[in-house]
Amino acid sequence: MPETFRDEEGFLAASLKLAALNGIGQAARCRLLEQYGNPQTIFSTPVDELKAVVLLPGNKIRQALDTVKEPLIQKRLRLLREHNIRVLLSNDPAYPSRLREIPDAPAVLFYQGNVELLSGPQLAMVGSRNASPSGLRTAQAFAAEFARTGLTITSGLASGIDTAAHRGALQEIGGTIAVVATGLDEVYPKTNRGMAEKIGLEGCMISEYSPMTPARREQFPQRNRIISGLSLGVLVVEADTRSGSLITARLAGEQGREVFAIPGSIHQPTSRGCHQLIRQGAKLVETTGDVLQELTPALRAVLREQPESAPSTPEQEKSLDPDAKKVLNQVDFAPTPLEEIAVHSNLPVELVLSKLLQLELAGRVSPLPGGRYQRIPD
Amino acid sequence: MPETFRDEEGFLAASLKLAALNGIGQAARCRLLEQYGNPQTIFSTPVDELKAVVLLPGNKIRQALDTVKEPLIQKRLRLLREHNIRVLLSNDPAYPSRLREIPDAPAVLFYQGNVELLSGPQLAMVGSRNASPSGLRTAQAFAAEFARTGLTITSGLASGIDTAAHRGALQEIGGTIAVVATGLDEVYPKTNRGMAEKIGLEGCMISEYSPMTPARREQFPQRNRIISGLSLGVLVVEADTRSGSLITARLAGEQGREVFAIPGSIHQPTSRGCHQLIRQGAKLVETTGDVLQELTPALRAVLREQPESAPSTPEQEKSLDPDAKKVLNQVDFAPTPLEEIAVHSNLPVELVLSKLLQLELAGRVSPLPGGRYQRIPD
Repeated sequence: MPETFRDEEGFLAASLKLAALNGIGQAARCRLLEQYGNPQTIFSTPVDELKAVVLLPGNKIRQALDTVKEPLIQKRLRLLREHNIRVLLSNDPAYPSRLREIPDAPAVLFYQGNVELLSGPQLAMVGSRNASPSGLRTAQAFAAEFARTGLTITSGLASGIDTAAHRGALQEIGGTIAVVATGLDEVYPKTNRGMAEKIGLEGCMISEYSPMTPARREQFPQRNRIISGLSLGVLVVEADTRSGSLITARLAGEQGREVFAIPGSIHQPTSRGCHQLIRQGAKLVETTGDVLQELTPALRAVLREQPESAPSTPEQEKSLDPDAKKVLNQVDFAPTPLEEIAVHSNLPVELVLSKLLQLELAGRVSPLPGGRYQRIPD
Repeated sequence: MPETFRDEEGFLAASLKLAALNGIGQAARCRLLEQYGNPQTIFSTPVDELKAVVLLPGNKIRQALDTVKEPLIQKRLRLLREHNIRVLLSNDPAYPSRLREIPDAPAVLFYQGNVELLSGPQLAMVGSRNASPSGLRTAQAFAAEFARTGLTITSGLASGIDTAAHRGALQEIGGTIAVVATGLDEVYPKTNRGMAEKIGLEGCMISEYSPMTPARREQFPQRNRIISGLSLGVLVVEADTRSGSLITARLAGEQGREVFAIPGSIHQPTSRGCHQLIRQGAKLVETTGDVLQELTPALRAVLREQPESAPSTPEQEKSLDPDAKKVLNQVDFAPTPLEEIAVHSNLPVELVLSKLLQLELAGRVSPLPGGRYQRIPD
């Protein structure tokens, strides 16, 4: 949390400097923040002292500090203000703990919008820029369904599957996060300017790149580690075998996240990447229920981590959709088996699962061993 | 092999009796054939003596023998002649050894056509009666490609995928086998009468059921064990989750055969069975090469089992298709890596693999460890 008395301008300038350091890895930058707390302190500390934290020779550190020119920082400061861009450092309690786990977590994140989404449960949905019309429809419909359950959909704002996923999730309770590979003052691709603005207002736009950073090829795979790092799992909707989505899936695997893939026709080139992932062990997904079932333990762990999360308010209760109400009505105060809830609510099992998760997140039902659920007294 | 001097009429009548025994399992019938050689001897042996082989009380055996009425046998004998149906017993050297391995191998097989196909390398291709047009096209194209490689396509003559697979393989070198669940004098479904006739002439039609046996529901899953039992592997092209093809796939797994499935759109109901199989460990198949690569060790084992198989004749050599010739020209007398053969022949890897297998079956190339191939001098 920003200290009330701190020098906001100096804090932002030092954060921009830290983000722009060339030749010092992210892990070292995070250690510097841990050690000195405020980024301003880092830049007022003698290089000889920094060496013990950065673990690089003094001349390398001096070189890195020299790459950051003051006029550029001033320009970027203005852009932060103009574009309503905020800064989140790795030692801030609001920095998402799941992302902090990965070995090369960015020391500085720039964001627009609702920073709280970053710490909530997220599913990454990624895929091809050249997806089939059916793939785009699936991405949008699945994203909406997940977001109705309370999951936030995290993606990369690329055209194709990413955009469809953002669009599906935007209006729903879970919302959406876009992790981009340029400064937040730029939008890539330009065609997504409207979507980026909406996400910056209603969801959250984030980037590890300072304002004025254009789209560079090597930044896209770098960015992908943040998409998977933030998420409980990555769902690849459609991807050819050279798609960047496969990088995101590989990183997810390395980061211990679940990897999901939707199969498709063998005649659809953008299904080949998904098939490759399934052969390598990714979970084959036909319905949103397939993902929710797999993520339930991870979602429960997230819920346990957030005991401070407010219990559902009467407004939220009223806002339960008709299907959620139908499901809630079938859950007894005694343990009720999932099959019974499904049969009596007369809804497909995957929808019931999704609604139960939503009710669980709202503190209305509690899961029991053996696939049973119990209603929580008001 | 039928003995030259045996009483052909009596042999066939006894075989028909053996096939019709009610209440004695297939394994016991096979043991009887092992013990007494000729089925006529079985029926002239006192029941007290049969007990030691059948392992059932005498009265049970007597009951079983009583179910077989002489006039019915005489009618069936006439139908065998009329329909050119032949008999293959489990103790005949021409009985396929792979089928003999399964625990409930039929003691009596009825067949029309080329019995040698039964002992050759086979791939079962099965699937839904209500397949999509794209699924039918895939079945036919894959079957043709496999059969060009020398694999025989075994299926169940059902409408939909089965028929498409038979059709694809029929004209190619590997040919096709139909295993049916009725007597060979009947055709089910009637719409496949023409296809059944063609297979009975150019391929092989087989059944464990005597003439005059109509289509009964319980015979179809029974029949499926023969389809998988004959084959090195089972490829499910399209199947809904209640399809009989999943029974064939399960039996294949139990019999130690490879199980393959082709994925499809999540919106295609007849892909769900395939997805279920893939989740359970079936190999995901996008190309014929995926299957051939997996089956190569089993195919090699088949080749080793048949050292008596004639080397390729000049006619066969001439009959090499242009692609096979192209591939052969790229295989050196020194070990040549697969990639090199593929690059220089300018053909897709899966086609090259299929052609190499064909050349291997023809005794023109020999596979070496590490995915290399060597030409065999003429």
